[in-house]
Amino acid sequence: MKIYEMKVAPNPRRVRMFLAEKGILDQVEFVELNLQKGENLTPEFSAMNPMKKVPVLELDDGRHIAETMAICRYFEELHPEPALLGRDPFEKAQVEQWLRWIELYFFMPTGMCFQHSSGYFKDRMTPIAEWGAECRKQAEGFFRFLDRHLEGREFIVGDSFSAADINALCTIDFNKVNSLRIDPEQTHLKAWYDRISSRPSARA
Amino acid sequence: MKIYEMKVAPNPRRVRMFLAEKGILDQVEFVELNLQKGENLTPEFSAMNPMKKVPVLELDDGRHIAETMAICRYFEELHPEPALLGRDPFEKAQVEQWLRWIELYFFMPTGMCFQHSSGYFKDRMTPIAEWGAECRKQAEGFFRFLDRHLEGREFIVGDSFSAADINALCTIDFNKVNSLRIDPEQTHLKAWYDRISSRPSARA
Repeated sequence: MKIYEMKVAPNPRRVRMFLAEKGILDQVEFVELNLQKGENLTPEFSAMNPMKKVPVLELDDGRHIAETMAICRYFEELHPEPALLGRDPFEKAQVEQWLRWIELYFFMPTGMCFQHSSGYFKDRMTPIAEWGAECRKQAEGFFRFLDRHLEGREFIVGDSFSAADINALCTIDFNKVNSLRIDPEQTHLKAWYDRISSRPSARA
Repeated sequence: MKIYEMKVAPNPRRVRMFLAEKGILDQVEFVELNLQKGENLTPEFSAMNPMKKVPVLELDDGRHIAETMAICRYFEELHPEPALLGRDPFEKAQVEQWLRWIELYFFMPTGMCFQHSSGYFKDRMTPIAEWGAECRKQAEGFFRFLDRHLEGREFIVGDSFSAADINALCTIDFNKVNSLRIDPEQTHLKAWYDRISSRPSARA
């Protein structure tokens, strides 16, 4: 199996950290693309993923799976232990709820703040500075929300590590491109961040 | 079990259609809220869902699950048949991929086009007309993408009905608020739309 990615991009990191937590990172070959040079915009890559995003998983039979969480779900099905998407119906729903909250109200505003403020992809989209500023406010608000949620908690969902911890960590680190970092007063978030960052998978 | 919703809103419809396809719609009591009047902004509702969105599922033991797809996943776990989130690892991944494509590149631009163009929620957000116009282009592009994908296909993923069909249908219908409809030339999309719309669950 191969994963097409760009190592410094946040979505591929989510997948690598997921695989590292499963202990199967070495079962996959990684193929590096340069997104700024548009190596994801070729007809060959569009045939693998019409959305032209990384990561994309290529199975040995030539079929493809795009989208970070779709790739993670595939590996969760093949390698259920340790469970990273929940262990029972309620916990699975809780993980899904948090994955969506992190995706829709944290990762997306973070990415859009970057793209609309920096003009990084201005050759292929229309940056709108006012929208970038609005997204920045949303991302800042999620730092505060996470800090309140993590008071007295070891993990984001229940009593075990999950993909929600992975996705929140990767989004916080990605916010360096927006010069957004954990405020020293956000002590619950900081303590959680230090714990999750110290897992070997965070360096995958 | 109770679901807090607003019947005309698109996310609650996705959940009702999912439950109707499972044959368990009558196992849930529905509580109607008026979002424009801010009935989702009260301290009581924020305690159920800090994101202040509908739908929210309330279990009989008083616990809550927010987010459309988290509620759907909970019911998929409790009532696996008929499977609406995929039947084997690859199909589950494909459904997840499509759910994310529809959510991120169709439903979100549709909702943001509406909110940023109409000013419907201007008492609680900052509409940016230029961003609304950009989102409209993205939504229009997804109509074309779906039309091409559906050539020669009965369903969005593989050979069976899934939550991807539900979410795409509800997003297309939601686009009436943006005056966006299927173009008569989009014949594959139109044929699929007519088939899916004629399922009894579409009226749930």
